[in-house]
Amino acid sequence: MRIIHLKTYALWLGCSLCATLAAAQTPSSHNIGGQPYPQVNPDNTVTFRVKAPGAKSVQIVLDRPYEMRKDTAGMWLYTSAPQVPGFHYYSVQVGGLQVADPATYTYFGMSRMASAFEIPEAKGEGDYYKPQKGVARGALRSRRFYSGVCGEWRRMYVYTPPGYEQDTQKRYPVLYLQHGGGEDERGWPNQGYMNHIMDNLIADGKVQPMIVVMNRGYAVHSGQPIPEQQPNQRSSMEAFAAFTDLMVKDVIPLVDSTYRTLSDREHRAMAGLSWGGKQTLDTALGHPDLFSAIGCFSAALPMRPGTDIGTLYGGIFKDAAAFNERFRLFWLGIGSEEGDGTAKFHQALADKGIRSTLYTSPGTAHEWLTWRRCLYQFAPLLFQ
Amino acid sequence: MRIIHLKTYALWLGCSLCATLAAAQTPSSHNIGGQPYPQVNPDNTVTFRVKAPGAKSVQIVLDRPYEMRKDTAGMWLYTSAPQVPGFHYYSVQVGGLQVADPATYTYFGMSRMASAFEIPEAKGEGDYYKPQKGVARGALRSRRFYSGVCGEWRRMYVYTPPGYEQDTQKRYPVLYLQHGGGEDERGWPNQGYMNHIMDNLIADGKVQPMIVVMNRGYAVHSGQPIPEQQPNQRSSMEAFAAFTDLMVKDVIPLVDSTYRTLSDREHRAMAGLSWGGKQTLDTALGHPDLFSAIGCFSAALPMRPGTDIGTLYGGIFKDAAAFNERFRLFWLGIGSEEGDGTAKFHQALADKGIRSTLYTSPGTAHEWLTWRRCLYQFAPLLFQ
Repeated sequence: MRIIHLKTYALWLGCSLCATLAAAQTPSSHNIGGQPYPQVNPDNTVTFRVKAPGAKSVQIVLDRPYEMRKDTAGMWLYTSAPQVPGFHYYSVQVGGLQVADPATYTYFGMSRMASAFEIPEAKGEGDYYKPQKGVARGALRSRRFYSGVCGEWRRMYVYTPPGYEQDTQKRYPVLYLQHGGGEDERGWPNQGYMNHIMDNLIADGKVQPMIVVMNRGYAVHSGQPIPEQQPNQRSSMEAFAAFTDLMVKDVIPLVDSTYRTLSDREHRAMAGLSWGGKQTLDTALGHPDLFSAIGCFSAALPMRPGTDIGTLYGGIFKDAAAFNERFRLFWLGIGSEEGDGTAKFHQALADKGIRSTLYTSPGTAHEWLTWRRCLYQFAPLLFQ
Repeated sequence: MRIIHLKTYALWLGCSLCATLAAAQTPSSHNIGGQPYPQVNPDNTVTFRVKAPGAKSVQIVLDRPYEMRKDTAGMWLYTSAPQVPGFHYYSVQVGGLQVADPATYTYFGMSRMASAFEIPEAKGEGDYYKPQKGVARGALRSRRFYSGVCGEWRRMYVYTPPGYEQDTQKRYPVLYLQHGGGEDERGWPNQGYMNHIMDNLIADGKVQPMIVVMNRGYAVHSGQPIPEQQPNQRSSMEAFAAFTDLMVKDVIPLVDSTYRTLSDREHRAMAGLSWGGKQTLDTALGHPDLFSAIGCFSAALPMRPGTDIGTLYGGIFKDAAAFNERFRLFWLGIGSEEGDGTAKFHQALADKGIRSTLYTSPGTAHEWLTWRRCLYQFAPLLFQ
């Protein structure tokens, strides 16, 4: 009996430990319902599991491929080094093929539908991008439209703030908000949680209620071939130079005629992340008659060693007084782990007398947590 | 010179043939921009291409796995047998791991994010589910809400018809529309093109403008574990029995308090496909005080050999006169390639004196083309 009791106790103890570990190892928030892996561990390491009974080797691709080890029943396992808080794309590699892990929802990134895991922030810190009880909700709409510039049907997302549908006389300023290279128009709603950020800011009275419009950045003129986007390779973004035309000739007129906008330049802003930051500069600085505020989040900047910014964008930075009067807000944001290019650009602007705002997101890299924070910091400064 | 001319001619001829073939082999409409494969060929065969240089073998999984053959440069190719028109999920299999093909957008199906290709209908036949120029657009919104029944944040899609935001006095009937097993609330917008179908029907004056609400069907009561959904295995759908509670206690009250609905039973209908058809029967027949019309598209029906339908749903089919008075529309749709279960159910209903409508979609199987057609046929009969 004693032996049995000890065995029972050992079994109970084992189960208790399992239960404790199971509670501490949390399924990532991007997992499909009920999928236990990837698991985020208390030390911010991540454990991945893939079922590939016939594979010789399987890798998890983070910054580079990492070998998984084969467990029982054809399961492959890998636990990563600790990861920084935020949103991380990753891939599974089998036989040289890089694919999404079937255990997670997928997000358009790396020029394909990609898996993701998320390392949560410290408790409470991420509340601003989560839905909150009792907060009035804006409407997040997807909208098809025919683009004459591109000769194709396209989709944009439009956020209208709470109250938009009740007071049908009121008009709103508009922020055009762009995704990064390899992502698409779903990035800000799906990876960036922009609707929750705006809802929460509006509920707190921190931001002007505004319409936010998100377009896909890939645009080629009608009849031109669409470049093939290879997974994990950024295709030449130069091929998508029709984007500014798309914005100016199709998108802005459609938005102003469809939604209750304030359609003067004082009430129109543009912001974008990474490649979308470059598109923002190209579009807004190329059309200062249309925009009065600019946001660049981890932007791909036109700076090379020795670049004189006075030569950029038709010399728009040469006349600082005119620029400062014209652009009420020129806002630059960057993650602290991303290098100093944005800070150098900020300094180069200051050297020319150009007023810009620099925000550094602590502890984050070139990923969506940086950009969620950027939107949260940037939006309240708009249209004041 | 003659030889050179001949060579030049041969080269030209070869290029012309290539160009002709390239034009005839169309990238599937679900491919990521610029991705040439999967290609739909003129005979409705489909050619797949996957880059997996290190794989011993690669399979394309349609109804079963088919071996691809290795070409140059690590490319694997496979051309299928002719496929029926419509929307087809498929997988790539490497080392026993079934995944989405990175060349296509993905859709939640088979309980995970899945690749798809589409065999187009004959020219003109699919116009009803495509966006058309000059047609007024309703708004397709995604909406987060907190469910007390499930103890979690959930998402629904809400379609409001054109004009909804202009005439703010008008109220609308509501159709609750459900996806199938292994799919989710994105199915009807993303795979079913329901917004284009409704926009086009409304523009043609064929349908009452209505609000359409789409929820994810997976619902467990607060505190209950969420079953793990394995790729390619339908988990026991019985575990999601909280769905009716979710609908009745959370969704319908939220919709009626948030949108300008006509909130009596005469103006509330429910429809669903496959497993969603079963959920529709469970919910609407379980709450005849709430619904006046029902649509079952390729529904999972509670019929077994020898089932007396008089015993189903608390005996609701026993009193035909009462049922026929209560439910103004009981509509059954099915693809011609799906077997005769729905026709038998229709006959069993008729034998009891229950009035139902049977629609058979010609040449289609258990997939989204059947269900797009079902919505197109069913919606005009609602709320008349």
